[in-house]
Amino acid sequence: MDRHDIETAAARFRADGRDFIRRTPLWRLPGAALGVACAEVWLKLEQLQVSGSFKARGMYNRLLAHRIPASGVIVASGGNAGIATAAAARALGVRCEVFVPTLSSAAKQQKLRELGADVVVTGAVYAEALEACLARQRETGALLTHAYDQPEVVAGAGTIAQEIEEQGGGTPDAVLVSVGGGGLVAGIAAWFEERSRVIALEPELAPTLYRARAAGEPEDVAVSGIAADSLGARRVGAIAWEIAARHVADALLLPDEAIRAAQLALWKEFKLAVEPAAALGLAALQTRAYVPRGGERVALILCGANLDPGTLA
Amino acid sequence: MDRHDIETAAARFRADGRDFIRRTPLWRLPGAALGVACAEVWLKLEQLQVSGSFKARGMYNRLLAHRIPASGVIVASGGNAGIATAAAARALGVRCEVFVPTLSSAAKQQKLRELGADVVVTGAVYAEALEACLARQRETGALLTHAYDQPEVVAGAGTIAQEIEEQGGGTPDAVLVSVGGGGLVAGIAAWFEERSRVIALEPELAPTLYRARAAGEPEDVAVSGIAADSLGARRVGAIAWEIAARHVADALLLPDEAIRAAQLALWKEFKLAVEPAAALGLAALQTRAYVPRGGERVALILCGANLDPGTLA
Repeated sequence: MDRHDIETAAARFRADGRDFIRRTPLWRLPGAALGVACAEVWLKLEQLQVSGSFKARGMYNRLLAHRIPASGVIVASGGNAGIATAAAARALGVRCEVFVPTLSSAAKQQKLRELGADVVVTGAVYAEALEACLARQRETGALLTHAYDQPEVVAGAGTIAQEIEEQGGGTPDAVLVSVGGGGLVAGIAAWFEERSRVIALEPELAPTLYRARAAGEPEDVAVSGIAADSLGARRVGAIAWEIAARHVADALLLPDEAIRAAQLALWKEFKLAVEPAAALGLAALQTRAYVPRGGERVALILCGANLDPGTLA
Repeated sequence: MDRHDIETAAARFRADGRDFIRRTPLWRLPGAALGVACAEVWLKLEQLQVSGSFKARGMYNRLLAHRIPASGVIVASGGNAGIATAAAARALGVRCEVFVPTLSSAAKQQKLRELGADVVVTGAVYAEALEACLARQRETGALLTHAYDQPEVVAGAGTIAQEIEEQGGGTPDAVLVSVGGGGLVAGIAAWFEERSRVIALEPELAPTLYRARAAGEPEDVAVSGIAADSLGARRVGAIAWEIAARHVADALLLPDEAIRAAQLALWKEFKLAVEPAAALGLAALQTRAYVPRGGERVALILCGANLDPGTLA
């Protein structure tokens, strides 16, 4: 997985003719507008992406890269990866089965059904839904999408970095990226390599990359807290681990209170409605977990907005 | 009020050094992404403007254009104009008095106080609050801001059109603009003149410009409905009337149900949280009240996001 795969993904999106993947805005603001002592903060408004999160890029790239069998596509996810897969499948007119555990919310199941997916509710927890999904995949031969640990999924996410560079007229000095399973940070780091400082951000309560760096290898961690809904992978992906080892400068942890405060500030001061996972960048700046140099241009990726808007009031 | 005044306003914003007015993103989408049979839809994301609405541009321009007395600035408004005036006054470090009627919500009064304004709650309806405001202004000599009918306020709004032209790399073929008192449409039309078709949009329940065109002159109308909060002026402004007569191609009415449906679609499909007044452009496209030609590039101005996000659920 390298820059070439990202260019291939971007070319697929352009050549496809359906205009499914949106080119989301890059909003360049003076640092002072966010109360940060640096030259510029670039907000990549990727929460406006089709399906409400960046995941659509990876899922659509995977679907475009393969011949899809009559049995369609299949995924285990009650969250953004499931929604993105269902939306991508609908755009291409292919079947989609989504396996979710019984604890997933009725609202999310309803959203998946609205997108035309066949929703299979099974297993008390995610691991059991995944097991049932994999068994079903072996039976039907459907194309499996994974939330973060497939090359096409990482390459799709990397197209965000390519867009940032184009829209910004150059690379930012630093990029702050939220990490769950690591698909997004891997794509971003694979594009920028050493040309920008890529900083990984995780909730204290979901520290997959941080703990892997401490241990020297990926390991399972307990996950909970405000952003577990979208950053709640139990282990950083193999692809992300390999790319992060080469191209991620630092991995920082943030407390839930700081994430929540940043999420509310994005709404109150900027009218950007985002889910907690998308607020880690601002939280890092506000808590000075990451302190930019004066002349620095810092990019933040607002990665999703699948939230109940009532929680912003 | 003409293009020159708009250029002066934009120059004031640049020269000011405070970076108070934000350059909001222009999001260019293929028409198909919004289900519209035209080449492109341009969404000017002005709901992300400081103070949560486009009004900040006009209020800040008025404040920068005048020497502000020790008694500060004064305004009668329980809505976006009051919030924008209070935010502009705070940025400049001057006093601000805001007169609101007793029926204005506690939440809005609280918002004004958070911005450092002295809030005077008086009169059962807006007209009485305005009367008290004007009496107070005569007493203190404070600089009065008007929600839409002052040249600097219209010119400030016009800077949105200048930005759209710069960001889009040319003029759109048509611009759809919501109208209350008409400050926004006047600024937009003064900038584009005959270079774009400017279409005025109003709720059926707040038809100030539509009725003025029918009568041949501005007249008071009864206002109510979903967008009355921000488009609820009783009469189109004198400046807007004069400019609209020369440069507004058409004035269209939209039912509340269509406005509400468009507001919900902007949230659900695009994760843009906007107030009803900002949804009239999409409502006009969805109901085919405005039908673009195939090759057309249509600009919509999302003018505000001062809403309770819980109403989007």
